[in-house]
Amino acid sequence: MDKIVSLCRRRGFVFPSSEIYGGLGSGYDYGHYGVLLKNTIRQRWLEAMVQERDDVVVLDSAIILHPQVWEASGHVGGFTDPLVDCRACKLRFRADQLEQSQCGKKPSKRPGEHSECDLTEPRQFNLMFETTIGPVQETGAKVYLRPETAQGIFINFKNVLQIARRKPPFGIANVGGKSFRNEITPGNFLFRMREFEQMEMEFFVPPTEADRWYRHWIDERVGWYLRYGLRESRLRVREHASEELSHYSSATSDLEYLYPIGWSELEGVANRGDYDLRAHTEASGTKLEYVDPAGERYTPHVIEPAVSIERIFLAFMIDAYDEEVVGERERTVLRLHPQIAPVKAAVLPLIGKDEGMVTRARALYEELRADFMVEYDDNGAIGRRYRRQDEIGTPFAFTIDEQTVEDDTVTIRDRDSLAQERVALQQVRGYLGDAIRRPWKSPKAA
Amino acid sequence: MDKIVSLCRRRGFVFPSSEIYGGLGSGYDYGHYGVLLKNTIRQRWLEAMVQERDDVVVLDSAIILHPQVWEASGHVGGFTDPLVDCRACKLRFRADQLEQSQCGKKPSKRPGEHSECDLTEPRQFNLMFETTIGPVQETGAKVYLRPETAQGIFINFKNVLQIARRKPPFGIANVGGKSFRNEITPGNFLFRMREFEQMEMEFFVPPTEADRWYRHWIDERVGWYLRYGLRESRLRVREHASEELSHYSSATSDLEYLYPIGWSELEGVANRGDYDLRAHTEASGTKLEYVDPAGERYTPHVIEPAVSIERIFLAFMIDAYDEEVVGERERTVLRLHPQIAPVKAAVLPLIGKDEGMVTRARALYEELRADFMVEYDDNGAIGRRYRRQDEIGTPFAFTIDEQTVEDDTVTIRDRDSLAQERVALQQVRGYLGDAIRRPWKSPKAA
Repeated sequence: MDKIVSLCRRRGFVFPSSEIYGGLGSGYDYGHYGVLLKNTIRQRWLEAMVQERDDVVVLDSAIILHPQVWEASGHVGGFTDPLVDCRACKLRFRADQLEQSQCGKKPSKRPGEHSECDLTEPRQFNLMFETTIGPVQETGAKVYLRPETAQGIFINFKNVLQIARRKPPFGIANVGGKSFRNEITPGNFLFRMREFEQMEMEFFVPPTEADRWYRHWIDERVGWYLRYGLRESRLRVREHASEELSHYSSATSDLEYLYPIGWSELEGVANRGDYDLRAHTEASGTKLEYVDPAGERYTPHVIEPAVSIERIFLAFMIDAYDEEVVGERERTVLRLHPQIAPVKAAVLPLIGKDEGMVTRARALYEELRADFMVEYDDNGAIGRRYRRQDEIGTPFAFTIDEQTVEDDTVTIRDRDSLAQERVALQQVRGYLGDAIRRPWKSPKAA
Repeated sequence: MDKIVSLCRRRGFVFPSSEIYGGLGSGYDYGHYGVLLKNTIRQRWLEAMVQERDDVVVLDSAIILHPQVWEASGHVGGFTDPLVDCRACKLRFRADQLEQSQCGKKPSKRPGEHSECDLTEPRQFNLMFETTIGPVQETGAKVYLRPETAQGIFINFKNVLQIARRKPPFGIANVGGKSFRNEITPGNFLFRMREFEQMEMEFFVPPTEADRWYRHWIDERVGWYLRYGLRESRLRVREHASEELSHYSSATSDLEYLYPIGWSELEGVANRGDYDLRAHTEASGTKLEYVDPAGERYTPHVIEPAVSIERIFLAFMIDAYDEEVVGERERTVLRLHPQIAPVKAAVLPLIGKDEGMVTRARALYEELRADFMVEYDDNGAIGRRYRRQDEIGTPFAFTIDEQTVEDDTVTIRDRDSLAQERVALQQVRGYLGDAIRRPWKSPKAA
């Protein structure tokens, strides 16, 4: 993990947030490549979940919803962690994670040794951030920052049913913006953060079809990760035992990835039954149900694949990270799927001061950037420029050299195989478009 | 404006938020087409501001930053509205907008008549939402939801300078996620909201070049709106008089659009001077300056084009909205630039039950959706299907008819001119790609 954090920092994927003010525990800002990587992840998710399907529409609900939403959903009452305070060392711990926590009085002790501590009984603390709408706290309305996007979907179920002329099975995907959880112990870099970007989809089905669709969505989501090159050996599906299940769920499977901290949840697929639509029907008085053309009514059941961009980001980065020795030189390379890579290609004049090369390189760069995120770099030795691109995962480099000036061909360098081939300048744009779309597998996958 | 609100609701661009719970004043959720429209706006902005330039990188900073950020920036002290309370009618008004506000005791009176009211002296109320990090309010840290993204850029200035190997003039664009303002009087649909998505770019320049770049960015941003088809007659640049300027700004121009509420700010371009970098240098102790290769140091000046997606969304919708009579029928049509339109094309089998047509239409649809947001619709009379697409601004429709089954050609219908031409099925994908990229001007622009 240290190598990933270091690369992210060094190349400007991710910075500790508010660093010049000493940071704000486990908050992060995304730099240039980090934003581009998040954008490609979001875009690929949207393509697979919405654009390439007939049966899913998209939604972007507000972050601050009516507070009754969170009462109906059970979050006001039950979205809590058990905490204990220590009267001696003055720290606060999660009661269910004491074995991983460190005593503040004797920080030299191993985690879990709280013999010096004088712990209170556990109390429940709600994880929702509160704020106030209106000018002053006395007269304003207490509201919450959403801890998940799912509820924004449920409360819009009827709107979408009517307006998008939908009938079950159909889904509503919520993309756009963050969810917030007042975590006591955020950490492990991007793995657990106080603000994070969810991508959730609620798929509404006739009750009798729930199990079939639950299986379908587990397979679909596993397929998505493999399509974008995640190593199969580091991905597994773990079905929750019945005692692990949330109160709203009749079945849940975690897609787990082998993070450096061990097998951990990457994405969850849950069968939420009719819990949510019923809860909001009861609380709001609005019937959230489907009436079929024969007049029969039912409350659809809901299958939910839910993930955060941050966990995908982290899994892709870890999976892609590689170091190898090429010739006599070491290189660090991010073997990201070309569709996931933040930059698709680099355009490099072999000699940065050669006018003929530079002119042609600039022209190619300007042609390509109308369609693709590409970089131009004429600074330094060509080997160093290649390695800069390897480190950020750029799958292709187009090098303009003496021969280009003579015959209008360029060298294409492949990030993974290091193979080089020559292509006519005027074919580069088409080549790049095709190359990005080709199925790709990590050379490390075997 | 009513027609826009009605269309947005009817076709699922925008819903009142938390509607089943009675709504949450001036909050909105975006439905399918609304999300797609926001995505195209964001994408076009990113292309113009980052992808197609050499000198701008992108950033996505956290929503909850260290609270000192907002002290240094002046927001804790000065980001306020003056409010008065009425002891008689118990309402609260903006002291600077009394002439537009309505007495609560005699709501029948005209706005501005507060003769029944017993108003307090104005008090200053801060517009930042507050919340608490940590498990309980007593021990947690008071933090703010960012009221703008600009400060997230300034505090990362040094990171980007070092890591992205930049030197002035260069810019940092912040896209991704919302800003929050506890507005007392949100309203006018999407025009003024409590949560909104900003797109801001801070362009750092040598002090002597500030004025030149300020002019440059005004022109650039005007050009962007015209490139995407906004009518020139409804767009103007208004330079702030000196008494209007914010404390941090030496010059500001509003790009104003002729909204139904009159000429109002669409986007602002400000010359912020060195105010922000100096303020954060002083507060943090970290020197936010540029040292040139000759060893000379200076604090760059900053030019800021700042806009919210919501105001662009609203301007594009208003500008595109049109009603006309075609033959004997009325149609509502959104004349959106093809690059802005949420759906790029519809694929329509002329007869929804004809197997030959449906097979070919589905095949075309599935080919196109790998690259474009497209819709398939076989439901109802063809005229009605065209009008459904007109209403959401789909620029092209591909109709599969008897002739298609015979000769593998399809009809292309142009949303604006209603011209129809025939093209070979296998050329449709290329046709669509080219057609979207063609320069486009609203037929209403003249």
